[in-house]
Amino acid sequence: MIYQINLKNVKIKILMLIVTMANIKEIISMKSIQKLPREKVLRDPVHNYIHVEYPFILELIDTREFQRLRRIRQLGGAAFTFHGGEHSRFTHSLGVYEVTRQIVNNFNRNYPSKEAGDGLWDDSESIVALAAALLHDVGHGAYSHTFEHIFHTDHEQFTQEIITSEKTEINQVLKKVSLDFPEKVASVINKTYPNPQVVQMISSQIDADRMDYLLRDAYMTGTQYGMFDLTRILRVMRPYSGGITFEKNGMHAVEDYILSRFQMYQQVYFHPASRGMEVVLTHLLERAKYVYEQGELPKNSMSNLLAPFLEHNFTLEDYLNLDDGVLNANFSLLRYHHDKILSDLAGKFLDRKPFKSVQITDESKPQIQYLKTLVEKVGFDSDYYTALNDSFDLPYDAYHPDQKKPKTQIEIMISDSNWMELSKLSKIVEAISGKQEGDERFYFPRVMIKGNSQDPELQELYAEFQSYIKNGELLSQREEA
Amino acid sequence: MIYQINLKNVKIKILMLIVTMANIKEIISMKSIQKLPREKVLRDPVHNYIHVEYPFILELIDTREFQRLRRIRQLGGAAFTFHGGEHSRFTHSLGVYEVTRQIVNNFNRNYPSKEAGDGLWDDSESIVALAAALLHDVGHGAYSHTFEHIFHTDHEQFTQEIITSEKTEINQVLKKVSLDFPEKVASVINKTYPNPQVVQMISSQIDADRMDYLLRDAYMTGTQYGMFDLTRILRVMRPYSGGITFEKNGMHAVEDYILSRFQMYQQVYFHPASRGMEVVLTHLLERAKYVYEQGELPKNSMSNLLAPFLEHNFTLEDYLNLDDGVLNANFSLLRYHHDKILSDLAGKFLDRKPFKSVQITDESKPQIQYLKTLVEKVGFDSDYYTALNDSFDLPYDAYHPDQKKPKTQIEIMISDSNWMELSKLSKIVEAISGKQEGDERFYFPRVMIKGNSQDPELQELYAEFQSYIKNGELLSQREEA
Amino acid sequence: MIYQINLKNVKIKILMLIVTMANIKEIISMKSIQKLPREKVLRDPVHNYIHVEYPFILELIDTREFQRLRRIRQLGGAAFTFHGGEHSRFTHSLGVYEVTRQIVNNFNRNYPSKEAGDGLWDDSESIVALAAALLHDVGHGAYSHTFEHIFHTDHEQFTQEIITSEKTEINQVLKKVSLDFPEKVASVINKTYPNPQVVQMISSQIDADRMDYLLRDAYMTGTQYGMFDLTRILRVMRPYSGGITFEKNGMHAVEDYILSRFQMYQQVYFHPASRGMEVVLTHLLERAKYVYEQGELPKNSMSNLLAPFLEHNFTLEDYLNLDDGVLNANFSLLRYHHDKILSDLAGKFLDRKPFKSVQITDESKPQIQYLKTLVEKVGFDSDYYTALNDSFDLPYDAYHPDQKKPKTQIEIMISDSNWMELSKLSKIVEAISGKQEGDERFYFPRVMIKGNSQDPELQELYAEFQSYIKNGELLSQREEA
Amino acid sequence: MIYQINLKNVKIKILMLIVTMANIKEIISMKSIQKLPREKVLRDPVHNYIHVEYPFILELIDTREFQRLRRIRQLGGAAFTFHGGEHSRFTHSLGVYEVTRQIVNNFNRNYPSKEAGDGLWDDSESIVALAAALLHDVGHGAYSHTFEHIFHTDHEQFTQEIITSEKTEINQVLKKVSLDFPEKVASVINKTYPNPQVVQMISSQIDADRMDYLLRDAYMTGTQYGMFDLTRILRVMRPYSGGITFEKNGMHAVEDYILSRFQMYQQVYFHPASRGMEVVLTHLLERAKYVYEQGELPKNSMSNLLAPFLEHNFTLEDYLNLDDGVLNANFSLLRYHHDKILSDLAGKFLDRKPFKSVQITDESKPQIQYLKTLVEKVGFDSDYYTALNDSFDLPYDAYHPDQKKPKTQIEIMISDSNWMELSKLSKIVEAISGKQEGDERFYFPRVMIKGNSQDPELQELYAEFQSYIKNGELLSQREEA
Repeated sequence: MIYQINLKNVKIKILMLIVTMANIKEIISMKSIQKLPREKVLRDPVHNYIHVEYPFILELIDTREFQRLRRIRQLGGAAFTFHGGEHSRFTHSLGVYEVTRQIVNNFNRNYPSKEAGDGLWDDSESIVALAAALLHDVGHGAYSHTFEHIFHTDHEQFTQEIITSEKTEINQVLKKVSLDFPEKVASVINKTYPNPQVVQMISSQIDADRMDYLLRDAYMTGTQYGMFDLTRILRVMRPYSGGITFEKNGMHAVEDYILSRFQMYQQVYFHPASRGMEVVLTHLLERAKYVYEQGELPKNSMSNLLAPFLEHNFTLEDYLNLDDGVLNANFSLLRYHHDKILSDLAGKFLDRKPFKSVQITDESKPQIQYLKTLVEKVGFDSDYYTALNDSFDLPYDAYHPDQKKPKTQIEIMISDSNWMELSKLSKIVEAISGKQEGDERFYFPRVMIKGNSQDPELQELYAEFQSYIKNGELLSQREEA
Repeated sequence: MIYQINLKNVKIKILMLIVTMANIKEIISMKSIQKLPREKVLRDPVHNYIHVEYPFILELIDTREFQRLRRIRQLGGAAFTFHGGEHSRFTHSLGVYEVTRQIVNNFNRNYPSKEAGDGLWDDSESIVALAAALLHDVGHGAYSHTFEHIFHTDHEQFTQEIITSEKTEINQVLKKVSLDFPEKVASVINKTYPNPQVVQMISSQIDADRMDYLLRDAYMTGTQYGMFDLTRILRVMRPYSGGITFEKNGMHAVEDYILSRFQMYQQVYFHPASRGMEVVLTHLLERAKYVYEQGELPKNSMSNLLAPFLEHNFTLEDYLNLDDGVLNANFSLLRYHHDKILSDLAGKFLDRKPFKSVQITDESKPQIQYLKTLVEKVGFDSDYYTALNDSFDLPYDAYHPDQKKPKTQIEIMISDSNWMELSKLSKIVEAISGKQEGDERFYFPRVMIKGNSQDPELQELYAEFQSYIKNGELLSQREEA
Repeated sequence: MIYQINLKNVKIKILMLIVTMANIKEIISMKSIQKLPREKVLRDPVHNYIHVEYPFILELIDTREFQRLRRIRQLGGAAFTFHGGEHSRFTHSLGVYEVTRQIVNNFNRNYPSKEAGDGLWDDSESIVALAAALLHDVGHGAYSHTFEHIFHTDHEQFTQEIITSEKTEINQVLKKVSLDFPEKVASVINKTYPNPQVVQMISSQIDADRMDYLLRDAYMTGTQYGMFDLTRILRVMRPYSGGITFEKNGMHAVEDYILSRFQMYQQVYFHPASRGMEVVLTHLLERAKYVYEQGELPKNSMSNLLAPFLEHNFTLEDYLNLDDGVLNANFSLLRYHHDKILSDLAGKFLDRKPFKSVQITDESKPQIQYLKTLVEKVGFDSDYYTALNDSFDLPYDAYHPDQKKPKTQIEIMISDSNWMELSKLSKIVEAISGKQEGDERFYFPRVMIKGNSQDPELQELYAEFQSYIKNGELLSQREEA
Repeated sequence: MIYQINLKNVKIKILMLIVTMANIKEIISMKSIQKLPREKVLRDPVHNYIHVEYPFILELIDTREFQRLRRIRQLGGAAFTFHGGEHSRFTHSLGVYEVTRQIVNNFNRNYPSKEAGDGLWDDSESIVALAAALLHDVGHGAYSHTFEHIFHTDHEQFTQEIITSEKTEINQVLKKVSLDFPEKVASVINKTYPNPQVVQMISSQIDADRMDYLLRDAYMTGTQYGMFDLTRILRVMRPYSGGITFEKNGMHAVEDYILSRFQMYQQVYFHPASRGMEVVLTHLLERAKYVYEQGELPKNSMSNLLAPFLEHNFTLEDYLNLDDGVLNANFSLLRYHHDKILSDLAGKFLDRKPFKSVQITDESKPQIQYLKTLVEKVGFDSDYYTALNDSFDLPYDAYHPDQKKPKTQIEIMISDSNWMELSKLSKIVEAISGKQEGDERFYFPRVMIKGNSQDPELQELYAEFQSYIKNGELLSQREEA
């Protein structure tokens, strides 16, 4: 069919259409989320700069809940052994965001998806990955692991709640991106998000979280075990249909990362003296709970901020009001409490007086009961002055679907359609794969091995105690002098 | 005269004498202070290792007063701008000790005194230098400078007291070295110790304190301004009769150090946003004091640990119980206080909401009065919501005996008997010598420049306020639109 | 006017047009130059990775003329004083390319031109900037400055020729980009290219060349003077109509860079011992020329590769065949030559036996003539065994249009339309601006000051010589013993 | 028995004896070797400073034979893949000296021998350890391993000769220490010196040589695999009767070192492209030898310095005149030779045109013969244009007395009298202990896989060749298209 049309109009329409098309990409992004005209940066000692490209990331950083992470240290007891490790979860969270940003930018530059299902990176996933990276730790509390153990809180659940509860500033910022954005971000963190590339970026055996904390903890403590070649790993990382894979020629960098993590656990995180401080803290909190239950912990001997937890009746806001300083301030009060055990343990924690320890084995374990009686005879309540403590980590494991929490194994790319699990290629990783590494230790007061008393009775107790120990290990049989 | 003697005995005596002589050095040092048979080390990110060679140094580190420094951060407001700067005075103090140890060892190796008055290094001074280095900051309190300003405490006086008071663990350890050792250490810190080499090592324009904090703050914040060549400076440092001097061929390293310090002040310590947080803290503490004096701050809204300071009635022990965490925990309580200014400022501090600022000059200063009225009209109490803040530092100065606190100038060694003051040799140092560097700023609520209100009246107030500002500076005359 | 047209066709045409428009950017770039689908990287110690985004950059690196730079060291005599400085112009050239790439990418991300003449960055300039950065030093020869001085060659002219001569592989690669591309690249290097942003990136008082060599020389020698904050400078760099400017809040990083350069010149490049080796080389080449002109340097005592230069008759290819190794190999032959001066100087250069020196002033200069006679009396030809050598650098200067080679001054951006020259803002830069810094020295054989002869006559000559020297300086008047 | 003696004399004698005893240590050292009153330092990028404490070490560095090492690069082909690796054996040798110095000083401070046979460190061994460390590589020649292979020279034998031959400057310096000092130093290097502590310091599976080259090669190339914690290893190193052992709490640092070495071999030293350049060099030298033997290599086409080696008739002095530059200068001449293979290979080496390669296995090896015929058909002499090359290393091994060259295993100290071999304690080391690691590759001209010819015949040859290769590996069976 033939119409009469005004050619001039057609030209204009064509031009308009062209302009529209040219702007479409921009328009789409404006509606959902716009980039800053110029990126902002925050100086960072590990990554040099944290680069912020989206306004909502700046707004998330400025929230009350995120700023609170400045008052929660990243390392628990380890900072008592490696004095440099005083950094907070705030700086770590920025670092995880930055590593994720670098992965995302690399994927966008080198592996952009051209059509759905091609296994390459879809740029529209970038913002959910960045938000999840930044917020993955936002539910952590003061002295997280120890506190959770005593007060039955769960930082992962709090992370979800902080992101999805309408009461938080974080939730308000996320909702401005889109109404379902909070749920999407939360689902990445709890690993139910459908795109495995995004999930594995944030949590897997080689994710932005681990990569930042190893580098940061190593940098801050001055240990060099945690160093690995981040830029090399980022270069050989690739998206694929199953998530994230690594080019074969970068396998050694991945191997080195696994070993760095292994060594940081063995040398820093599991250091016996650090655990000796964690034992002090555990017993201190337990005793506070006990004394409270006895009605012996009136208001004026502690702060209002801790009370809701002793009463087993706390809100999200109560939780957000807790931080390391609040706990320490309470300990500074408790060191004057009339309960001797409570005040002594508070002082030990504040003044860094860790329990001492020996390594134990299945053979030597039966001796512990007798050692405890010696500790009691010297005058200590063995419930609060001794402890068993084990630290085991699985440095790496392949995927075992039958496990409770099966791990996403690391896949090395042999060719464009062929992958191989890491420990099948690396003898070194194979050597530690699937094996729990760590040790079990018996903790007791320092005086038991360092004591030097004028009182012959006491001195004999010390001597007897010491006769069960050799080269830092508990003997399965006492060694006669 | 001739005696009959038993030659065999003589031989034995000779041997005994020889043995004695051989041991004399050891015996002398045992009496005063003995070295560890093997040095101990603490891992440090800046100096790699802190080397401990004397048992009493280990004991000092283990005291309650020294361990407390773990809970007091080195940088005040600057950590809110440079997020990595979360380190404590504990790690800094170890660093100052280590730099001093390296100076002392270098002096012992290369410039040992052979006779009294030769201007070289007398090894028996080593232990007093090491102790003073370790303890020089031990009197610092929570948010030191701001707190002192409001509560009229003095950290230098507390340092002296902690060292010399019989009530402290530190004093007990020092007295074991010798009864007058605490006084000697204290006199080094207050600069009355007779040996100028020891004093200048710990406090002068180029001392172990400054060298550690510049390197450490730069390392932790990730800024590179603070970097200078420590090993080079240590190599060209020499004792002389007047204290410490620097070989001429190392002058450029000294120059570089002066500039590093200058730049750290301008870029990090005096950053406008950091000062914006310090202004918030100052007003917050002032308001707490005011509210307390009004009888509106009952016990349950704050902690027992802060009370003695509000009551102007505190002991050394009260002071030692304060730390950053105690103050922050109080702020977390105060954010729920019914006084709106108090609760708002507490929240601003905890959530990092600094006041904004503009630079002012003598010409523009008169405008401030009017700007304050605008701030009041918007609804803020200008006493608590605006401030003038100046930050000036003297990057370097020559010795001026007529000044109140004359500075020990840096002497460059031209020959063995000839020295020249640094700024006479370095054009660059001359350019900043004796000149106060910094700026003066006017602080106000962020909304005054970022505000965007639907209320036309408010919006007009914002607009008027903003018309006085251009390129971050207060105009001496309002610019018409 | 109204036409009858087929609407279906119009639709198709519209669609085709749209498609065409959408592809235009891609098509344009395809015609001129295409990016690699995935960037390639070369590991680099200073920049971590050199990122290559265009295939023609890889091809340039692979050319014979560029690979030749591996055999020409970056530092001349300085490597004899700072043993780590063994790197070549090859690695430096890659570094200059990488710094330029980072500037260009930053400009593209944050300051893209929207219309001609807006003073922002035009992405189509990127490739000429990258090529010029990579090739800016390609004409450097063996021991460049010394060799040029003796044989009257000019490395800048050779750089131009290597780029524009049809005989080189580099020219072939460049011509594939476009026929006028070699001329464009050459014009950037000789500063006649019309876009001042591109020119200043490669050569100005703060350019990619200087930034790489300072960082690289500092890294390799282990000196820390040359360190400055590259990432900070790159962040505050901005294109403007006049070329490149720096944001005011980054001024201190620029200041620090100027001082780093100043200190590297004073401490590393102008080190007296390094210059002592350059004096040996100069005299060695001069003597070789003299002996050749006497007909005493037959073919078998040197290599064919040096001959064209002694004959003053060489081609571009001859020049490209010369490198450090070729010169050294000739010296290894010349150390067996029967001419004593020639063989001695060859040995001195190969075995690192620099001349010694004293600093001279206008006052002391007149003494040199007499010192030369003493050197002659000891038995040395003073033409070959003594020298005056001065080393002066202008650390920074403002623009002076009346100078022969006026410098592009560094402009700090006060506001979007307001710039200020650096030394007007920085007291420190002002202190060294426009001032020649360096010294003048008199060189002579080491034996004159270290000699210790049994022969009383010789010993007296040494003693007399030494009596004119004190603290490393030539006295204007001999000091009586 | 009783003698009459003069008591006064006895006293004097006693005093004299005492004085003598007190001075004996000093006197002994003065006679043999005196320390510098102040140590000298050389700036070093890896160790910050090389500290020189003895004058004879300075003299050794200044010898002709040691200075020659500046002209011999540490890394062979690897520098063509990792461009930063341009450093020489000179800087490495200084580094080995410095690591040894640190070990020796640590042993002197913390484990000084009190009586012969106590297994602790005897300070009088220090100077022989330091000299051996400095000189251990002094016999290395240009492109050592390749050159030796073709010309049947032996760098270890030359090291011995340079130290013990009376003709060298090094020998003259060593003899000034004591007449038997050269032999002692030489015996340390060839492992016949009686003190195993000294021998193991210089050559064992964890010695100063390896520790320096790993750190230095990693630093210079910018790869991070080679990084390990040197200061930690030095701290846990201890002398014992059997040589050198490591404290158990430092085992992980030793483990990390073993892995660093393993990874440097796999990733840097054995890189396929580096070996591709070594293959070019091997064939180039072989062809030169062949052409010389055909009488086709007249004097004017090469330099006099290479001739003695082609003639199989060279002296120590001839050997010392060879360096990398001399070889390269000869290649620059040979690229104009009329023999096409010779000139082509010379160009390939100078311009970095490595052969390409594929990995082969026992299964695929039989295919090589046919691939060679394809290479021949394209027009290459397969003797010079193809090669098999394997690179295998034993990352670590326990002591096996039955082996030809049994390795000194690494002993970890369990207690003061109990040691355990490293791989028995470390699963990770066990995984690579005693196993050859590396691969075997087939090398051929690049055109065979990158070729793209208009000539259909050629193109078919390329295609056929390529059909035997997949994912960088040679197939045991050709894959049909």
